Amino acid sequence: MYQIDLNSDLGESFGRYTIGNDDKIIPLITSANVACGYHASDPVVMMETIQRAKEAGIAVGAHPGLPDLMGFGRRSMAISNEEAKAYTLYQISAIGGMCKAAGVKLQHVKPHGALYNMAAKDYDLSKAICEAIYEYDKDLIVMGLSGSEMIKAAKDCGLKSASEVFADRAYEEDGTLVNRRKPGAMIEDEDEAINRVIRMIKEGKVTSITGKDIDIKADSVCVHGDGEKALLFVEKIRKTFGENEIEICHL
Amino acid sequence: MYQIDLNSDLGESFGRYTIGNDDKIIPLITSANVACGYHASDPVVMMETIQRAKEAGIAVGAHPGLPDLMGFGRRSMAISNEEAKAYTLYQISAIGGMCKAAGVKLQHVKPHGALYNMAAKDYDLSKAICEAIYEYDKDLIVMGLSGSEMIKAAKDCGLKSASEVFADRAYEEDGTLVNRRKPGAMIEDEDEAINRVIRMIKEGKVTSITGKDIDIKADSVCVHGDGEKALLFVEKIRKTFGENEIEICHL
Amino acid sequence: MYQIDLNSDLGESFGRYTIGNDDKIIPLITSANVACGYHASDPVVMMETIQRAKEAGIAVGAHPGLPDLMGFGRRSMAISNEEAKAYTLYQISAIGGMCKAAGVKLQHVKPHGALYNMAAKDYDLSKAICEAIYEYDKDLIVMGLSGSEMIKAAKDCGLKSASEVFADRAYEEDGTLVNRRKPGAMIEDEDEAINRVIRMIKEGKVTSITGKDIDIKADSVCVHGDGEKALLFVEKIRKTFGENEIEICHL
Amino acid sequence: MYQIDLNSDLGESFGRYTIGNDDKIIPLITSANVACGYHASDPVVMMETIQRAKEAGIAVGAHPGLPDLMGFGRRSMAISNEEAKAYTLYQISAIGGMCKAAGVKLQHVKPHGALYNMAAKDYDLSKAICEAIYEYDKDLIVMGLSGSEMIKAAKDCGLKSASEVFADRAYEEDGTLVNRRKPGAMIEDEDEAINRVIRMIKEGKVTSITGKDIDIKADSVCVHGDGEKALLFVEKIRKTFGENEIEICHL
Repeated sequence: MYQIDLNSDLGESFGRYTIGNDDKIIPLITSANVACGYHASDPVVMMETIQRAKEAGIAVGAHPGLPDLMGFGRRSMAISNEEAKAYTLYQISAIGGMCKAAGVKLQHVKPHGALYNMAAKDYDLSKAICEAIYEYDKDLIVMGLSGSEMIKAAKDCGLKSASEVFADRAYEEDGTLVNRRKPGAMIEDEDEAINRVIRMIKEGKVTSITGKDIDIKADSVCVHGDGEKALLFVEKIRKTFGENEIEICHL
Repeated sequence: MYQIDLNSDLGESFGRYTIGNDDKIIPLITSANVACGYHASDPVVMMETIQRAKEAGIAVGAHPGLPDLMGFGRRSMAISNEEAKAYTLYQISAIGGMCKAAGVKLQHVKPHGALYNMAAKDYDLSKAICEAIYEYDKDLIVMGLSGSEMIKAAKDCGLKSASEVFADRAYEEDGTLVNRRKPGAMIEDEDEAINRVIRMIKEGKVTSITGKDIDIKADSVCVHGDGEKALLFVEKIRKTFGENEIEICHL
Repeated sequence: MYQIDLNSDLGESFGRYTIGNDDKIIPLITSANVACGYHASDPVVMMETIQRAKEAGIAVGAHPGLPDLMGFGRRSMAISNEEAKAYTLYQISAIGGMCKAAGVKLQHVKPHGALYNMAAKDYDLSKAICEAIYEYDKDLIVMGLSGSEMIKAAKDCGLKSASEVFADRAYEEDGTLVNRRKPGAMIEDEDEAINRVIRMIKEGKVTSITGKDIDIKADSVCVHGDGEKALLFVEKIRKTFGENEIEICHL
Repeated sequence: MYQIDLNSDLGESFGRYTIGNDDKIIPLITSANVACGYHASDPVVMMETIQRAKEAGIAVGAHPGLPDLMGFGRRSMAISNEEAKAYTLYQISAIGGMCKAAGVKLQHVKPHGALYNMAAKDYDLSKAICEAIYEYDKDLIVMGLSGSEMIKAAKDCGLKSASEVFADRAYEEDGTLVNRRKPGAMIEDEDEAINRVIRMIKEGKVTSITGKDIDIKADSVCVHGDGEKALLFVEKIRKTFGENEIEICHL
C-alpha cells in the first residue's frame, strides 16, 4: 500500500470578498494550506478556516505569501532574504497562534504563489524562509516543489519536508515545472494526468517533456476547489488512487 | 518600598519610515509595547525591536491596534467584537511567535490608540479582546487604563492585569481621562505631574479635575520617547521616584 | 410624465476577487457609482468598469469611500474633515482622470457606505466632501440621501444635487432612514416597496414608520445587482414604473 | 547660456510618518516629483505638498510608483503592462485632479524607484506607462533616464520628454547607470560629480566607467534633500552652475 497527501489552498477570502469553495474541497483533502493575511485572507477568515479544518479532521498548514493583496501574491517581488525571513515568521506565527487558540496543531508551511516559485529556484531565499520556520517550531514540515531548492534548504536546516507534485503540469528534465507559456506545459488529459501521478507515487518516476524519465519524489499532490470541474477532478483522483493501492492520508 | 513599571510604545517604524527614539527610551523603561503591523510596524522592525528589548533586558508586550496604518490606529473604527477578537489574536500571535523565535517571553498585551480608548469604555469589546488573549496564552498580563472596562474584563476572563496611569493627564471623578479638548485636560507642570503619580503609587489616590480625591490603582506609568523634552521628563521621573522609595521594575 | 434615475454601485471587484453582477445590472440602470480604490476596486477594475458603462451608455459617477478595504468601507471611522476632503479629492480625481482618458464625462459623486451615512448626519463632514467636489469640478452632481445634510451642504456650496431614495427602507418622521436593527426598518413586500417609491416620485410624499406622511424628494433610486432576486426586483421596478408614467432616465 | 532643471522627490510622508526635508529642498529646485499614494504619500500630504510647491513657484510633477508602501516602491514587482498602465493612470489622475483643485498645472510625470528602473530597460512597459500619460493629458512631459527606453517610448507616443541625469552615478558605455553594487558605481568626489554634469549639459558628453566618452542628453538633474550633506551639495551645484553659464530653470 502506498500513501499520499492531498493539499489545497484555503481561507483565501478577504473581508466581504469570498473566493474558492472551501466547504466543498475540505472533505476531499487531507492538508489545508491556509492564507495568512498577506496575499489573501484576514483574521476572521483565518479563524473560521482553522475551525472548519478542525471539524473535518484535516491538517492545517501555513500558506505565507508576498505582501501583495492586489496581485494575490502571484507577482514576483524583489524582497531581500531578511525580509522573506521576517514576513514568513510573522505569518506563520499569526496562524500558529490562531491554531493554538483553536486547539489545533500547525502541521506544515507551504509558501504561496510567487514566493513558492521564487524559493523553488533560489537556495538562499529558501534558506531564509526555512530559518524562520525552524526558529518558530522545528517540528513543522516544509512543503515545497519536489526536487526544489526549498526541499534542499529544509533538509539543511534540519526540518522535515514534504515533496509536492502537480498532476496537470509537465516537468523539465531537471525536475522543474515547464513554464506555463510553453507548449505542452499543461497535461490536459485527466486520465493521463492521474496516471502520471500514480507512477510518481509508485515508481518515483515521471516522463519529462523531452521524453526522458526522471526521478521525482511525491509526498503530496496539489489540488484545487475552484469550480465544478476542479472538484470532479479531485473526486476522480481519489477514486483512481483507491483502485491503485494508494491511500490518501496525512503527511 | 513601592514598585512601579514604566512602559512605552516601541517598534512603530514602517519600511523606510522611521519614528520614535527606541534606542534612547529603552534604557529608561521596563516594559516595551511593540506594534504588530496593523497600525504601525512591519515584520523586520518587529524582529529588530524584540532583539533590542532582549539585549536591554526589558519586557516585551504586544501592542495590537486597528487596521489603519494611514491613521496610525488613532481613529475610532466601528469594528465588531468578533473582528476585534480576531484582529487581536492575529497580532499577538504574530509577535508572540517572533518572541518565541528570539527566545523572549511575551509578557503583556496593551491595545493601542483608538482600540485602547474604545475598549476602556466598552466592556463587550474588552471582553472580546481578552478572550483572544486568554485563548492564546492565559499567562499574559492585560495592560489597560486603570479602572477601565478592560481591567474588569481581564479579571472576569481570569487574566492578570496591570493598571496603567498617565502622569500628564487629568482624571474625571469616575476615573476616566479628561478629554484632551477640555481645558485642564493636560497636566502641564512637570513637578505636579510627577507628584500626582507618586501619590497614585503610594496612596492609591489622585485629585480629579473637579477637586475631589478618587481611588486609582497604579501598576505602570506610560512614558514617551519622542523628542528631547520627553526623554528628559522620563529621566526626571526615574530620579524623583528613586528619591521617594519607588523602585522601577518589571510587572 | 415623471422622471427618475436608477443608480447602482459597480466596479467593486479587487485584484483576483470578483464581486457583484456588473454585466447584469448595467442594462437595467442609468447611473453607475464606481468604487475608487479605497473601500473597493483597483485601477484595472475601474478602467474596465468605465469602459463597460460607456458602451452601455449609462452615466458614470465616483463612489469614494473610507480607506478600509478589509471592512469594505462599511465601518464608521473617526476621520477629520480635512482628511475627508483630501480622501474625496484623491478618489474623485483618480476616477475623473480615468473617465477623461476613456472619453467619458464624470457625472456625479456619491459617497459610499459608512462615509455616506456619516455625512448624511454631519453637515461639516458633508461640507468638507462637497468642497473637494466643487474644487475638482463644480459641474458635478452630488448624490446623497434625500433630505440629508449632504444635500444641504451641496446646495450651500453651489453644487447641483440628486436626492436618493430607497425602496426597501422605512423612514423616520424626520426623513432619516430607520436603523436596520429596529423592527420594521425593511420594507419586505416588493409591491409595497415599489408603490412607496412611485408615491415619492409622483407626490413627493412617503409614509414614515410612525404612520405620518412626510415630504421627500426623489431624483434617483438605489438598486442592487447582487443575486438573482435583486435583479428580478430591478426588472419589476422598471416595468411598474413604465406602467405608471415614470420614465427611467439620466439625472 | 545653458539651461537645466533641478528635480527632487517630495511629498513622501505618510500619515504620522514624516520623511525628507521638503521645506529645505523646495527653494533649491525647479521641479517637484510628488508621490501619489502608492509607494508613499497620502491625500493630505499630497495636497499640502502641491500647496507648498505652488507658493514656492516650482513646477509639480506626478511621481507614480509600485503598490508597495512597505518597500517604498523600491522592490521590482512583476506587474503586467496592463497593470502598469492602469496604476499610472490612477496615480497621475489623482494628483492631476489635486493640482486642478489647487490651481496648479501638472507639468511632468516621473515614475518612481523600481518602476523607473524597470521602465528604463523595458520598452513595452515604458509604452504602457506613456499611453496612460498620453490618454490623461498629451501635454505632460515624461521625465526618464537619459537615453532610456522610457524616453524612446515617450517620443513614439507623441509626448514631450525630459532626459534626467545623475551627478553621483557612473555610466556604462551604453548609457545605462552602473549597478550600485559594482565598484566605481558612485561618484564620491563632489567636485568631480558637478564637473561631470556641467560637461553633460554643455557638451552632451560623459566619460563612461570604461573610460570611453559617450553621448548624453541632460534636461534635468536629480537632487536629494535628505540630510544636511545632501542639501549643501545642492547649494554647491547651484553655485557652480551659476559660475559656468548654466541657468537653473523650469523644463
